Amino acid sequence: MSTLEKLARQIFDSQPFSGHLGASLESVGTDSAEIALTITDELTQQHGFAHGGVLSYLADNSMAFAGGLALGGDVLMSEFKINFVRPAVGGRVVARARTTAVSRRQAVCQSKVFAVSDDGGETLCAVAQGTVVAASTEK
Amino acid sequence: MSTLEKLARQIFDSQPFSGHLGASLESVGTDSAEIALTITDELTQQHGFAHGGVLSYLADNSMAFAGGLALGGDVLMSEFKINFVRPAVGGRVVARARTTAVSRRQAVCQSKVFAVSDDGGETLCAVAQGTVVAASTEK
Amino acid sequence: MSTLEKLARQIFDSQPFSGHLGASLESVGTDSAEIALTITDELTQQHGFAHGGVLSYLADNSMAFAGGLALGGDVLMSEFKINFVRPAVGGRVVARARTTAVSRRQAVCQSKVFAVSDDGGETLCAVAQGTVVAASTEK
Amino acid sequence: MSTLEKLARQIFDSQPFSGHLGASLESVGTDSAEIALTITDELTQQHGFAHGGVLSYLADNSMAFAGGLALGGDVLMSEFKINFVRPAVGGRVVARARTTAVSRRQAVCQSKVFAVSDDGGETLCAVAQGTVVAASTEK
Repeated sequence: MSTLEKLARQIFDSQPFSGHLGASLESVGTDSAEIALTITDELTQQHGFAHGGVLSYLADNSMAFAGGLALGGDVLMSEFKINFVRPAVGGRVVARARTTAVSRRQAVCQSKVFAVSDDGGETLCAVAQGTVVAASTEK
Repeated sequence: MSTLEKLARQIFDSQPFSGHLGASLESVGTDSAEIALTITDELTQQHGFAHGGVLSYLADNSMAFAGGLALGGDVLMSEFKINFVRPAVGGRVVARARTTAVSRRQAVCQSKVFAVSDDGGETLCAVAQGTVVAASTEK
Repeated sequence: MSTLEKLARQIFDSQPFSGHLGASLESVGTDSAEIALTITDELTQQHGFAHGGVLSYLADNSMAFAGGLALGGDVLMSEFKINFVRPAVGGRVVARARTTAVSRRQAVCQSKVFAVSDDGGETLCAVAQGTVVAASTEK
Repeated sequence: MSTLEKLARQIFDSQPFSGHLGASLESVGTDSAEIALTITDELTQQHGFAHGGVLSYLADNSMAFAGGLALGGDVLMSEFKINFVRPAVGGRVVARARTTAVSRRQAVCQSKVFAVSDDGGETLCAVAQGTVVAASTEK
């Protein structure tokens, strides 16, 4: 495991909210990250779909890790935008983020959130784009 | 309590994710809503601030209710954008959303998320804008 | 005219694109700005409405000036989001931007774009939110 | 030329604003479009870069055509978000949009805007994501 991957896993493991949602950091690359969770009842909204806040968490956090890996350290999300394109029903949900543009102190990232059915079929549920900034950056 | 407020409270109470985060629907208006929660340890990220996913939930859900009240029924979030402007530290966080433009089937809403200190002082932590669509709308 | 207003007007006058669209900086405040233009035929799309690119210019530039005034110098837009809520038909269009949150190096701004009819009535056409950063900021 | 491509070119040619900016519809696919223009002096801002409003036009319009081709008819932009990642200096600028998710009445699209130098080298300048809706859709 690379030093950066170790740092990413340490940071992920020190996020109580990720634990509270049952999320796991599935994989990381040099400028990408994948986070997944199982849609338990407590993560749903009034129609039994994953709540938009859950998909937002996945998009936000996957981009934060993709950008952090590209920038090489701890980061903050500055902003993001998410489009919900289909309800996430049952099973598992996975967010895959990658860095689209990186400079010294910020990375623009994109994430796609998929519902994964029991047979492994994937359905795109949400698409996001956002800005990650180095944590040491004074705003 | 108006019929619409009753409907809003029924929908909110039937969102398991809102309960999982300890959120409450503080108040509703004809085209506005306020949702709050206490930042317990399990809602934080690696620095002890409220996780961006928590602020995103608050922005998303407060806009969904503001737009639902304006549209007069059950709704879905189509998309939203959020800017994180300051970390939300300790205490309580409240999101206040209002409808900025409404047509027959969609409402554009804005939400501001504030950290509330023990003495009641409020600090703006996030600003969001998004689109709410009537749930019966076929996409 | 304050020093900052003078700087704002100098910058606006040195934007060839603003001149190309016939835009004018109507007014500025300590953290706000208003930019307007007349919808000539060349600014329209296929249905005779102001093109989305024109409303985007107005939102983008009004937020850049609002943020620049709040930050006290030359700035760049980092990103923005815009919702088109009604077509802008005929007459004049005005964008009013204000700063919602400001720190040392960045400002989050919001802008509303209105169509103004001949009798002065205003119709909200677009709503935007974005991030302005100080131009000297290395990214 | 397919019927849809013909329709796309007819619509593009009937956009006075596209002509005013000197833009051309470079190519279209079944759910993608490419629009380009040359950065003349009148399209610049105070530092001689392409104005953000120009890049916004390119992102907006390329997504509108990508979504229109995917939806099979005339469309409106509902909303979009754009991140400016590098200044667009001199030469030519091209926006390439594709549809990321499509349903019966709306398409979520993404666009990348590149500065093209004289030797054909491309630099990513902006990244956008937005929602295109069928024009016949009552809002």
